[in-house]
Amino acid sequence: MHSLVRQCRIGLPPELNGLAEAEGIPPQRMAGAIACGHIAVPANPRRTIRPVAIGEGCRVKVNVNIGTSQGLCDLDLEMRKAEAAISAGTDALMDLSTAGDLKAIRKRILSLPVPVGTVPIYEAIRRAGSAADLTADILFSVIREQCREGVDFLTLHCGVNHDALEALRIDPRMLGVVSRGGAFHVAWMVATGEENPLYAEYDYLLEILKEDDVTISLGDGMRPGALVDSGRLAKTTEYLTLGKLARGALDAGVQRMIEGPGHIPINEVAWNVKVIKEVTDNAPLYLLGPLVTDIATGYDHVVGAIGGAIAASAGADFLCMVSPAEHLALPNVEDIIEGTRVARIAAHVGDITRRGGVTGSPEEIRMAVARRDLDWEAQYAEMLFPDYARSIHDRDSERETCSMCGDLCAVKMVRDLLCTDQKRD
Amino acid sequence: MHSLVRQCRIGLPPELNGLAEAEGIPPQRMAGAIACGHIAVPANPRRTIRPVAIGEGCRVKVNVNIGTSQGLCDLDLEMRKAEAAISAGTDALMDLSTAGDLKAIRKRILSLPVPVGTVPIYEAIRRAGSAADLTADILFSVIREQCREGVDFLTLHCGVNHDALEALRIDPRMLGVVSRGGAFHVAWMVATGEENPLYAEYDYLLEILKEDDVTISLGDGMRPGALVDSGRLAKTTEYLTLGKLARGALDAGVQRMIEGPGHIPINEVAWNVKVIKEVTDNAPLYLLGPLVTDIATGYDHVVGAIGGAIAASAGADFLCMVSPAEHLALPNVEDIIEGTRVARIAAHVGDITRRGGVTGSPEEIRMAVARRDLDWEAQYAEMLFPDYARSIHDRDSERETCSMCGDLCAVKMVRDLLCTDQKRD
Repeated sequence: MHSLVRQCRIGLPPELNGLAEAEGIPPQRMAGAIACGHIAVPANPRRTIRPVAIGEGCRVKVNVNIGTSQGLCDLDLEMRKAEAAISAGTDALMDLSTAGDLKAIRKRILSLPVPVGTVPIYEAIRRAGSAADLTADILFSVIREQCREGVDFLTLHCGVNHDALEALRIDPRMLGVVSRGGAFHVAWMVATGEENPLYAEYDYLLEILKEDDVTISLGDGMRPGALVDSGRLAKTTEYLTLGKLARGALDAGVQRMIEGPGHIPINEVAWNVKVIKEVTDNAPLYLLGPLVTDIATGYDHVVGAIGGAIAASAGADFLCMVSPAEHLALPNVEDIIEGTRVARIAAHVGDITRRGGVTGSPEEIRMAVARRDLDWEAQYAEMLFPDYARSIHDRDSERETCSMCGDLCAVKMVRDLLCTDQKRD
Repeated sequence: MHSLVRQCRIGLPPELNGLAEAEGIPPQRMAGAIACGHIAVPANPRRTIRPVAIGEGCRVKVNVNIGTSQGLCDLDLEMRKAEAAISAGTDALMDLSTAGDLKAIRKRILSLPVPVGTVPIYEAIRRAGSAADLTADILFSVIREQCREGVDFLTLHCGVNHDALEALRIDPRMLGVVSRGGAFHVAWMVATGEENPLYAEYDYLLEILKEDDVTISLGDGMRPGALVDSGRLAKTTEYLTLGKLARGALDAGVQRMIEGPGHIPINEVAWNVKVIKEVTDNAPLYLLGPLVTDIATGYDHVVGAIGGAIAASAGADFLCMVSPAEHLALPNVEDIIEGTRVARIAAHVGDITRRGGVTGSPEEIRMAVARRDLDWEAQYAEMLFPDYARSIHDRDSERETCSMCGDLCAVKMVRDLLCTDQKRD
């Protein structure tokens, strides 16, 4: 099977026309960006989905994580969450299940029409019994099986290697490792003394992925788990490793994305994005957060939206929804809806900058016109969440303006005044 | 009565000791910053309140707007909103009432122990009957009365002058004027052809304010009301006027703050803050928003938190809560709580940068320690909203970790592993 990267190097695959149109960029330019790895289109050819383009010149995309955990394993609930996320506008889903019949869960989630990602180390650990008992064979078998099942992108913590471990040792962090996948690899490396097979046998891994044209999402196992850890060496050590691995994947014709931090202060967000983009040669960047404070637990979706909007504006391409239950509990359906909406806001705010400002954002222009005209239906037509907004507006009775200002509406007062006045000039 | 500015010029007023301690800055430095207008302490000597310092070197403060409107006039509801805002952690309140018995409403709100601000033009218009019938006498009488009633700070749109009107004419905006106070002044100027008395008779205004040592909040009547309007001349024209007026107030010994935009794209937030700070000689900056998209109606509290966090990080000192009902309806009690919490997050995120990073944020350090130790009670002790977070955590049964990861807690896995490992080195 020819990989999308290779197809784009020699011509224009016909399936790009729709994608390029959706992004408002010329198909040939999109093909060029895929060929040089600036855009990824995670879409396993074994499945028929609504693919999305992620990266340079594209709208910022949103992913929602769902999945069972040992504390709460209810497949029907996870499907309701997945469907709620799609209704709320997510572009992709990741199945992070760690409990129950993992294959059965994945099969149902793969029946949904959006790109689906997984973290194969979770199933590999389940099969091995413990991190110490994991073998490279088990891990690669799981990866191969998931590719064959139709998964579109895999988070693989290839950067959690002995260099990263050494960085953790010489420059310790308050919260050593907070990535679950990263922690498994660290545990395995410490137990066996060996190198992470995903790093040591990276070329073999790429061969497996290439067979089904599956996209690799180079996981950030070393992402800082607290603001106090943002400046430690492990993070940047991993950035550099991922940059090297990103080049390797592209050379092999495998599409890749980079995963980024984590917990970092607001003033460090933009330059972290720039550094990752530089060392990875502008690979698509996939972020969880960044979370810009650690003490707003219960509102980490808002904290992530602050970090995510800045990151997207600075160049991040794909935002992972953070739920209000982050750090507290497995999210419920309401958490998923709230988190997805807020992530979409962050993505859109970033898009305004990415499209060169408001002049490249026709929905912002149409919204301003609708507000000037106090045309509520035209406003709803532009809103990200029209039904929700309507429910707030309709709780009071006034219609042309709103109960906020009532007749004392500034727009209403000045609109005709200035228009008339301008005509006089 | 000696104004606080004048007292700080000649010595150290004893009431500053507590305020300086609360901010963690030396009292003499705070006195210096008040004397040169970099910090304001809005506190009418006619009332006893819990004063707060706003400006350079101080924690970012939060204000919550409440008040009746013609569509919804229920004083008990407004008091419940005010009390909810104080419980949720606001530092100040503004009474924006425009309906009902305005004096009676104000009296009840002034019984609360926080600094209270008002927008006198609202009552002046009520008394005059319409914007066209307003006179300078009515306006100044209302201002004097409100000062005598104990109001701590007054939003006065002194910058809405003929220069601003001319800027609106030569560089028109989609949404002419969205500030209600600004719109009244524009309507009056257009109707009468005269200059805004708050601008024309600014020295007289300062005399009135000085009598009761009331702080002036120089209103941003020309704030852009849509992202598409962010680059128009009226905004910057008003910045320059406010800069001149800020100097005049300080010379007269009147404390002042500057109000800033409005609706602006994310990449313009930081430099707008810097420009205002420069032209006003670092006066305390009070912001509503900024809102960084216009299409997320129903979630404008989150949109405002994104803009507010960046603005606070760049130098803004005082954030006005934006409610989820903004642009839709008068907020209810739940909206006020949600908006206040989210504004406090934005303020705190900005504080981290302002205090020189995480090392200046002991609560962030303690939170990281509590997370490392999986010590839930210690985490709650640092959280901004511990009861709310607890309600999410307690909905599932696991306690040491949480239902999100269950036994597969990365922190738990790596913590002992690396500690042991480090000891071996």
